Amino acid sequence: MTIPITEITRIVGKDHVLTAPEELHCYGYDASKMKARPECVVFPGSAAETAELLVLANRDRFPVYPRGAGTGMVGAAIPSGGGLVVALNRLNRILEIDAENMTAIVEPAVVTGDFQKRVLECGLFYPPDPASLQFSTLGGNVAMCAGGPRAVKYGVTRDYVLGLEVVLPTGSIIRTGTRTMKGVVGYDLTRLMVGSEGTLGIFTKIILRLIPAPEGVRTMMAVFPRLDDAANAVCDIIKHRIVPSTLEFMDQPTIGVVENYLHAGLPTEAEAILLIEADGREALLDEDASQIERLCREAGADAFKTGRSPAEREQLWKARRAISPALGQIRPGKINEDVTVPRTLIPSLIRFIQGLASRHRLTIVCFGHLGDGNIHTNIMLDRKDADERKRAERAVEELFRKVLELGGTLSGEHGIGIAKSPFLELEVGRDGLAAMLRIKQALDPLNILNPGKMFVPNRAFFGE
Amino acid sequence: MTIPITEITRIVGKDHVLTAPEELHCYGYDASKMKARPECVVFPGSAAETAELLVLANRDRFPVYPRGAGTGMVGAAIPSGGGLVVALNRLNRILEIDAENMTAIVEPAVVTGDFQKRVLECGLFYPPDPASLQFSTLGGNVAMCAGGPRAVKYGVTRDYVLGLEVVLPTGSIIRTGTRTMKGVVGYDLTRLMVGSEGTLGIFTKIILRLIPAPEGVRTMMAVFPRLDDAANAVCDIIKHRIVPSTLEFMDQPTIGVVENYLHAGLPTEAEAILLIEADGREALLDEDASQIERLCREAGADAFKTGRSPAEREQLWKARRAISPALGQIRPGKINEDVTVPRTLIPSLIRFIQGLASRHRLTIVCFGHLGDGNIHTNIMLDRKDADERKRAERAVEELFRKVLELGGTLSGEHGIGIAKSPFLELEVGRDGLAAMLRIKQALDPLNILNPGKMFVPNRAFFGE
Repeated sequence: MTIPITEITRIVGKDHVLTAPEELHCYGYDASKMKARPECVVFPGSAAETAELLVLANRDRFPVYPRGAGTGMVGAAIPSGGGLVVALNRLNRILEIDAENMTAIVEPAVVTGDFQKRVLECGLFYPPDPASLQFSTLGGNVAMCAGGPRAVKYGVTRDYVLGLEVVLPTGSIIRTGTRTMKGVVGYDLTRLMVGSEGTLGIFTKIILRLIPAPEGVRTMMAVFPRLDDAANAVCDIIKHRIVPSTLEFMDQPTIGVVENYLHAGLPTEAEAILLIEADGREALLDEDASQIERLCREAGADAFKTGRSPAEREQLWKARRAISPALGQIRPGKINEDVTVPRTLIPSLIRFIQGLASRHRLTIVCFGHLGDGNIHTNIMLDRKDADERKRAERAVEELFRKVLELGGTLSGEHGIGIAKSPFLELEVGRDGLAAMLRIKQALDPLNILNPGKMFVPNRAFFGE
Repeated sequence: MTIPITEITRIVGKDHVLTAPEELHCYGYDASKMKARPECVVFPGSAAETAELLVLANRDRFPVYPRGAGTGMVGAAIPSGGGLVVALNRLNRILEIDAENMTAIVEPAVVTGDFQKRVLECGLFYPPDPASLQFSTLGGNVAMCAGGPRAVKYGVTRDYVLGLEVVLPTGSIIRTGTRTMKGVVGYDLTRLMVGSEGTLGIFTKIILRLIPAPEGVRTMMAVFPRLDDAANAVCDIIKHRIVPSTLEFMDQPTIGVVENYLHAGLPTEAEAILLIEADGREALLDEDASQIERLCREAGADAFKTGRSPAEREQLWKARRAISPALGQIRPGKINEDVTVPRTLIPSLIRFIQGLASRHRLTIVCFGHLGDGNIHTNIMLDRKDADERKRAERAVEELFRKVLELGGTLSGEHGIGIAKSPFLELEVGRDGLAAMLRIKQALDPLNILNPGKMFVPNRAFFGE
């Protein structure tokens, strides 16, 4: 496999090709901390150029790795087989915000947070809020079907993608979906593409659905001596027809780690802290906040605070935001799994994880999105310690089996990428995996686009 | 092609096989009024039996046509090539309603309206409301991605399907998706299956997402002398962060037809009547209704009524519900297209349709879902009048081209089936169609499952 640099340069122009080793280096990693080195990085300026690159790749059979901001957690953007990185950076325009029809058309490299600010200026709201939203791109969010804390009320990226312009692996350009809420013409290629992790197509335009921006927000913090009471409180709140926009959760080990770091007087003896946000019509918010307080206290909360102003609200978010830096101080590394179970089963899951930690002599801290059952399970470790790494890997496998037993899923929002590809079959089954591979092969017969992601290399399909 | 009746009987038992001509007759039509005769109708009692039937069909190469209640509008359930109808009637249980996690698991033959009543008893809401919901099944709704008036606020069937048990065309049984809001493990086969019109799999279980039931509803009727003012009013309402749950629309010809039928004193000189529903928290509904009235009047409505009680509300729905019987009286037949455009472009579309009617000497009445841009365009005709039929067909083609020019879609909720298969490529393009056919071929290499639907028979792919 040699990359035809001259032809690539002819397609995109010499200012948009990188081949120097020190430059290539910057496009070989992502937030998974995995690394690889591409042979060439290219910045196409259009769908047509992207298509030409893929035609070339099919002719010469070199792998192509699409890349957004590299904020993914599972290695989906790693050029694991060398080859060509197609970095979408130049396709970074918001092409249209149609406030009347509440839709927008964007190019893939628009940064999620920037886009949210722009639509908010029009009184509109794009809810998906992955933690990396200040850096991550909408194209990457769509490729991974990014989630975030607000999913409990607003859903995830897939719920906001109406249509796409996609360059298929073989180099044809298609338009999928519609600009309208309804549309049932042919197979739903739009949603097939969402979450396909760059293996089925490169998005060059994205049509997004927007909703009216909520008038106001209240932030609340509730401290629960007992974990089960926190889970019950969440069900009670929703049963009262209040769907909070955020229901974040910290377990006892997390509270301890954060308190050690912040010294903010957090209740380290509590089994759970909930951070709750309610948004919507101003006229209802104070009543909703009182209801939520009442329900939390009835369920067993022994402390409760409500923040109305931005400063008060930010104060309540402080502990939640401190989790990542605090974790960095206790061990040099972590395995961060984003397993998801039906929310009523979270106490069972957390108790299982506590047993896992003691059985394998590991520190495991859990926090995340209680409302949608998506719990970030962080197994802290020093990767240089081979024994600890082994124990952590065994714990991960036990965790995954338990999650599936509870009717859950191995990944709520990070995806499969390289990191979880050995476990895909465990969840989707042999026949489910075969169906996915047949679709991959149908659209990418030479396995050109982002090979080695989602699926472990599969001889039967790709002759690897 | 002979159907191995003996083996089929061995699989499902003799009480669950029909072969008598007068019985077969009942399974050969649907709401499209197309007709065909299957060679055999079978009622499997499980996913395993369904899988066995498909294995047999692949062995002997006979076509299999899945069937729900036969309420579809485009012929997707017609056994167009004879063969075997797999009627899902026996798989009609609600397996689970999990009120705490707000999910349900159902078999495909559960009737949509029955299911809605059952979940409402638990304080929960399943919003999709196709017009046929008293008869249509959830399996059929999922296969067609059914819509309905409430889509403007609540979305369509796809927005409520979390996971599926699917018998693939080759007879393997897979489980797709999750029981949770989040889940990004592998390709989104769930959404690929939703709207696949029975061509990619037979659903034997469906996991549905539920939401809290709204506390109350208000129904309103607004009369607009000018069509554009009605469209503007809709935008104004949504801009004020009120998203009505229903925004139904009747154009002037529809008002005339209904008034002729009902003699209810409808304003036949008005260009548009809107039927608006707002639902949600009781505390806000009266304020919302006044706001909606104010915005409609400011936009140009010259009459406005609000209904609070069930009786008052039903009274306002009377004209809307009379449309179908009224249309039946003016011509014996109709072509009912469910084109969809961005809602601000509805006045342009309606004016185009009025021109179309006069150019082709046809009666065309338009009504439907103004909020989501989905306009039911009814070309009235007598199918026995060859000349009128020809003019109607020309009008349909012109309508479709205009809709695409306006950035719309040929079908908002009915789907493609047989009726619109010649037009699929017009919307999705040559390469989009090729991608869909490759997926079909990947999952159904012998073209066993519901052949002749969605795609016009395609030699290159299926050797037909």
